[in-house]
Amino acid sequence: MENTTITLAHGAGGRQTAELIEKVFARHFSNPELTSDDAAVLSVGRENIAFTTDGFIVSPWKFPGGNIGKLSICGTVNDLACMGAKPKYLSCAAVIEEGFPLENLEEIVSAMGETAREAGIRIVAGDTKVAGKGQVDHIFLTTTGIGELLPGVRPRGAGAKPGDAIIVTGDIGRHGCSILLARNDFHITADVKSDCAPLWPVVEAALHAEKEIHTIRDATRGGVGTVLYEVAGQSGLGIRLNADAIPVDPAVQGVCGMLGLEPLYLACEGRLVMFVPPQKAQDVLIALHQMEHSRNAAIIGEATCEHPGKVVVTTGIGTQTLLPAPGGELLPRIC
Amino acid sequence: MENTTITLAHGAGGRQTAELIEKVFARHFSNPELTSDDAAVLSVGRENIAFTTDGFIVSPWKFPGGNIGKLSICGTVNDLACMGAKPKYLSCAAVIEEGFPLENLEEIVSAMGETAREAGIRIVAGDTKVAGKGQVDHIFLTTTGIGELLPGVRPRGAGAKPGDAIIVTGDIGRHGCSILLARNDFHITADVKSDCAPLWPVVEAALHAEKEIHTIRDATRGGVGTVLYEVAGQSGLGIRLNADAIPVDPAVQGVCGMLGLEPLYLACEGRLVMFVPPQKAQDVLIALHQMEHSRNAAIIGEATCEHPGKVVVTTGIGTQTLLPAPGGELLPRIC
Repeated sequence: MENTTITLAHGAGGRQTAELIEKVFARHFSNPELTSDDAAVLSVGRENIAFTTDGFIVSPWKFPGGNIGKLSICGTVNDLACMGAKPKYLSCAAVIEEGFPLENLEEIVSAMGETAREAGIRIVAGDTKVAGKGQVDHIFLTTTGIGELLPGVRPRGAGAKPGDAIIVTGDIGRHGCSILLARNDFHITADVKSDCAPLWPVVEAALHAEKEIHTIRDATRGGVGTVLYEVAGQSGLGIRLNADAIPVDPAVQGVCGMLGLEPLYLACEGRLVMFVPPQKAQDVLIALHQMEHSRNAAIIGEATCEHPGKVVVTTGIGTQTLLPAPGGELLPRIC
Repeated sequence: MENTTITLAHGAGGRQTAELIEKVFARHFSNPELTSDDAAVLSVGRENIAFTTDGFIVSPWKFPGGNIGKLSICGTVNDLACMGAKPKYLSCAAVIEEGFPLENLEEIVSAMGETAREAGIRIVAGDTKVAGKGQVDHIFLTTTGIGELLPGVRPRGAGAKPGDAIIVTGDIGRHGCSILLARNDFHITADVKSDCAPLWPVVEAALHAEKEIHTIRDATRGGVGTVLYEVAGQSGLGIRLNADAIPVDPAVQGVCGMLGLEPLYLACEGRLVMFVPPQKAQDVLIALHQMEHSRNAAIIGEATCEHPGKVVVTTGIGTQTLLPAPGGELLPRIC
């Protein structure tokens, strides 16, 4: 690796994160079950389960549309959902800064309880540590989830097929944009709420409409663009996006315009990307439109045999541009 | 609660931690599977599993006898072992400070891999986050483990019975003492290594000798004294300790003498406390003496019907003293 110390880019969920995981973690942990998907698939006696973990260090800890507690449930629930696994049990470990107000902790824990109930997952184990003033920034959470795999369903990045319709389950980039605004570094005011939501019901509805959805991914750190590049890499396919079909809230679009940001690279915390056999795409779309957190689902492009490993964006007037590959950190501590 | 902000005592594993968990976390997470034991026991289809999580924020991250990586595997493996569960799968989430040297990360991750192999557990899922300089102190880890419950075995705090022999699996307080010395706040030099070790083989050997061990607990934060008070509370029994039987390394005893510390309240990371039916105590002891990490196991006392909820220490000359109940933080960031 080119660095000798950890940089923010190592935590951005892009190329340098992948490199760090491969060259340091995977090398020492090497075993057949170590996952590069959203969750590991494990056998326990006669059963198979999905198992996933996620750390949350979002700053600020509270933002329009949620807080770190809600986020910590949604992130892990959604990683399970992406594997076609019904979220079942969750553990939570908290590291809290000395001096953190108890009423803030109460607000966070209350949001965790509420979101867990909405998601149908039970929080069954926990751990609490306190670090001295200045040794941790407010509060960090880690949640780990166990899910029951639906039989006969195994969506994964390498499963994408040429011709697949690419669906996003709603307008993109709201979480990243809301965090950016909450920090107030740019003194911009806009009415943007995080999309943060638990998505098992969305996945269940989609899989009910079509069991053979090839790929389901949640677009968190790195946004939809990073997910598309990852799936392109894993499947060896190219991706063609229709720029006009990508749903972006006007307020998010406005902020992106002012700051020169690409909404495809802004984090979502309540949006999925699905690769669906083309003949079933409309059925899945109709099913998604019935669900609260995917009312604005849209087909945004297709998987192709052309330009493998690349994401190309086509505009309404027919021009084609290459979406730049995901790079370093757009915004640190987004989740 | 008497405080309106989080204090270090809330993270010390004693009374205030219990209060925080009960009044904030348990209140919002309430469900039948939420555990107050070392791990939750869950049903997944036709199987039962043990599930536990632990955050590690030890400072310094490296100490004689181990580092935060080794500790993060031992802590979770031992929590599973205490439930009579064979450690099977583990996830790891890391939060790393920007600027942390890669070679240090390599050392930590390498220790994790090595300890996981020794413990027979597979690291199957992970997450990496990076926080800016000064937003996290070096590196924090959270590990979460899944274990296979041995059939017919369910040791727990409430299971202790009057007359049970109380065994510790080795000399106590070495982890806490080694951290204290590594910080060098007191400018004391002594040759003390952490006892940090994965203990499933120790538990397996003990359970092989006697299936009906009533209670198995690992004495981490808060040390053996805190575990004894917890078991006394859960079982409604009293505990009588024989002061002369408690194994303490002379170097640890020396440091404790200089600083006025009670070894019973120093953290261990490789020591178990067991409550064993008295007629089986010698069999268990003999089995423990065969194992690398419990060669110096000793019977240190017994459970009684007298003075319920209290721990009384008897000396060689027959005097009795009440072990003070666990209080606030002895040493912060011990694990």
